[in-house]
Amino acid sequence: MVVSESIELQMQQAETRVFKVVFPEIINHHNTMFGGRVILMMTETAFMTATRFCRKNFVIVNADKIDFLKPIPAGSLIEMVGNVESIGNTSIRIRVNVFREKMKDIERVEVVSGVFTLVAINDDNRPVRILD
Amino acid sequence: MVVSESIELQMQQAETRVFKVVFPEIINHHNTMFGGRVILMMTETAFMTATRFCRKNFVIVNADKIDFLKPIPAGSLIEMVGNVESIGNTSIRIRVNVFREKMKDIERVEVVSGVFTLVAINDDNRPVRILD
Amino acid sequence: MVVSESIELQMQQAETRVFKVVFPEIINHHNTMFGGRVILMMTETAFMTATRFCRKNFVIVNADKIDFLKPIPAGSLIEMVGNVESIGNTSIRIRVNVFREKMKDIERVEVVSGVFTLVAINDDNRPVRILD
Amino acid sequence: MVVSESIELQMQQAETRVFKVVFPEIINHHNTMFGGRVILMMTETAFMTATRFCRKNFVIVNADKIDFLKPIPAGSLIEMVGNVESIGNTSIRIRVNVFREKMKDIERVEVVSGVFTLVAINDDNRPVRILD
Amino acid sequence: MVVSESIELQMQQAETRVFKVVFPEIINHHNTMFGGRVILMMTETAFMTATRFCRKNFVIVNADKIDFLKPIPAGSLIEMVGNVESIGNTSIRIRVNVFREKMKDIERVEVVSGVFTLVAINDDNRPVRILD
Amino acid sequence: MVVSESIELQMQQAETRVFKVVFPEIINHHNTMFGGRVILMMTETAFMTATRFCRKNFVIVNADKIDFLKPIPAGSLIEMVGNVESIGNTSIRIRVNVFREKMKDIERVEVVSGVFTLVAINDDNRPVRILD
Repeated sequence: MVVSESIELQMQQAETRVFKVVFPEIINHHNTMFGGRVILMMTETAFMTATRFCRKNFVIVNADKIDFLKPIPAGSLIEMVGNVESIGNTSIRIRVNVFREKMKDIERVEVVSGVFTLVAINDDNRPVRILD
Repeated sequence: MVVSESIELQMQQAETRVFKVVFPEIINHHNTMFGGRVILMMTETAFMTATRFCRKNFVIVNADKIDFLKPIPAGSLIEMVGNVESIGNTSIRIRVNVFREKMKDIERVEVVSGVFTLVAINDDNRPVRILD
Repeated sequence: MVVSESIELQMQQAETRVFKVVFPEIINHHNTMFGGRVILMMTETAFMTATRFCRKNFVIVNADKIDFLKPIPAGSLIEMVGNVESIGNTSIRIRVNVFREKMKDIERVEVVSGVFTLVAINDDNRPVRILD
Repeated sequence: MVVSESIELQMQQAETRVFKVVFPEIINHHNTMFGGRVILMMTETAFMTATRFCRKNFVIVNADKIDFLKPIPAGSLIEMVGNVESIGNTSIRIRVNVFREKMKDIERVEVVSGVFTLVAINDDNRPVRILD
Repeated sequence: MVVSESIELQMQQAETRVFKVVFPEIINHHNTMFGGRVILMMTETAFMTATRFCRKNFVIVNADKIDFLKPIPAGSLIEMVGNVESIGNTSIRIRVNVFREKMKDIERVEVVSGVFTLVAINDDNRPVRILD
Repeated sequence: MVVSESIELQMQQAETRVFKVVFPEIINHHNTMFGGRVILMMTETAFMTATRFCRKNFVIVNADKIDFLKPIPAGSLIEMVGNVESIGNTSIRIRVNVFREKMKDIERVEVVSGVFTLVAINDDNRPVRILD
C-alpha cells in the first residue's frame, strides 16, 4: 500500500494506547490473564484506532492471526497498541500488539498480537468509503 | 484426520454449549453486542470444549478466522457451540459457532464463527500429548 | 399435568444449557463460587428456558426451593440446565439443575437446584396465556 | 422462637443495609433491574447479616420464597435490608426485604422479599453451633 | 452553617448506608481492596445521599480530601456511610466515611473518608436551588 | 521541585495513557459516564504511572482536587493521561488528566483532572524511598 504523506500522518495520529493492571478480577485459575479477556481489550483497541483514524462508524467483521506468544501473570502491567495496517475501499485492517511490563523490574516484551478488520458504515448500516 | 470410533465419541461428548441473553451490560453504542464480548465468550467456550475432551490443562495459543456474519441486537439470545475440529500431537483446534435466536420469534441463524488452537500442558507448563 | 405430544416436544426444545468456568472473578473468600452468583446464572437460565418455550415476554415472579447441595470450588466447570416443569394459565415453572465437572477428572455431580416461576406479559405488562 | 434480651440486641445489631442505584449496567431489555441481579444482592446481604450476627464462617444452603412484588425501573434507588428471622442449632434464617425509592419523588415501597438459610462452619467445613 | 430543625431532620433521613463484602473480584495484587474501587463506591454513596436529601437530579463536580487511613484486606466487610456536610445555593457537600469490620471478630475502624460536591440540575442541565 | 535531567527523562517515560470507549455498561441514567467510574480509571492510571516511574510497590494514600469540568456522554472516547507531578521522600504525586474525543468529529477537550498521592512500600508494608 502506497500512502500519501498526509495519510501517513493521519495513521500516526490514530495510534491508540491502553495500559492495564492485570488485577485478580481478570485472571484465570493458572493465575494468568485469561486469553479471552486479552482479545476483548484488543478488539476495543482496534475499534478505537479505526474510529480515530477517520471518525466514522465502524463494525468489526473479522479477527485473525491472534497469536499468544507469552503468558501474562497476575500483577503484570500490559499495554495494548493499535495501529492502522492497511486501508481498503470500505474496510480497514488494524494491528494490535500487546506488551507486558513487570511491576518491579524494567522489562518489556511483546506477548500477543493480532489483526482486526473493520468496515465503515453509515447510519443505514451501509458500507461507506474510508477515505473521502 | 482419521479418528477411531472411541475418539469420535469422545469428541461428541466434548461438545459444549453456552446460551446467553444479550443484556444492556454487554452491548455497544450501536445497540448491538460488542464484537470483543462475543470473542471473550467464544474463547471461554473453546477452552471448556478442549478441557472436556481430554481433561488436561490447556492454554490458548491462537485465535483465527473469526468472522462476524450478522449483528447481534440487544434483546437477542445467543448460543455458543464448541466442537473439536482436529487433534494434533500436543495441540487441539476447536471450532466455535455462535447462533442468534430472537426472543419473540422462532429464528435461528449463525452470526459468528471462529477457530481456536490450544496446547495441553503439564504442571511445569510443558506441552503434553493430547491423546495418551 | 397431562401434556400433549406436541407440547412435550416443545418442552424438550426449550431445554437450555449454559456451561461456565468458575474463574476467580466469581468466587468468594472460601475459594468457592459465591451462592448469589450461582442463583444469578440460574435465574438467567430460567428466563431463557421460558422464553424459548413459547417466545413471549416473561418477568420472574418467584424463586423457590433453591438448595445448595455441594460447594463449587474455583477451577471447576459448571453446567446449568433449565427445563419446563409445569405450565399454568399465564405462568410457567422452570426447574434449573446445576452440575459440577472437575477440569482434570471425569466426574459430574449435581450441586444446586431450584424452581423459578415466570409470568408471560404483553406490551402493556398484562399477563397473557402461555399456550395460545 | 423465644430469645433472650441479649440475643435480641445481637439480632438488632446484625441488621444490614445496602443502598444501590439501578444503573444501566444491571438492567434488562425491559428497562428494569434483572431479577437475578436482585437475588445476587439479596444473597450478599443475607451473608453479611448472618456473619455480623455471630462472627462465624457461613455457607448458604437454601434460598426460598423469593417473591417479586413490583418491578424496579432503571433510575430507581433500592435498599436491601437483612434481618435474622430465626436461629437453629447450626443454621440461621435471614429475611431480606428490598425497598424501592424513586429518585425525584418521596415514595418507598417493598418490591422483593425472600428468606435465606445459612450454616455456620469451622475451618474443616463442619457445622458449628450458632450460639456458643 | 445554621440549619433549621426541619432541615436537620431532612439531613438525618438522607443518611445512606452501603455494606459490602470484599470479594476477590474487587481486590488488587496486594490482596487488599483496590483504592479506585473504594472511591467508586463512595461516589455512588455520595450521589444517593444528595438525591435522597432533596429528590433532585445531581451531577458530581468535585471529589476532595479522600484519605486512605488503613488497608482493606480481602475477606473484610466494609460499610460506606454518606451524610450531608453542608448545603450551598445550588450545590451540596456530602461526606462519606468508610468503616471496616472483620468477619470473625468484633472490630470496627474507619478506613477511608472523603468529601464530594454535587450540583442539582434541572432537565436542561441548568443548576437549580437545593432548597426550594 | 528541581529535578535532574535523568529524573526528568524517567518522569517522561512514566507517562501512562489509557484510551476507553464509553460503552453503555459504564454510563448512568443521564446517559453520561458515571463520575465514580471515571475516578476508578484515574486511580488505576495514577497507580500505573507511579509504578512505572520507579518500579516499586505503591499504595494510594490520598486523592484530591478531582474536578469534573464537562460531562462525558455515552459514545465518546476518553483518554486518561497520568504524569508524575512531584516526588517526595517516600511519596509521589501523580496528576491524571482526562480528555474526551467525539467518535465522529475531531474534538479533544479536557473533562476531568485530579491529583493522587501514593506511597512506596517494601514487602513489610513499610515506606521506602522513591529515589534510591
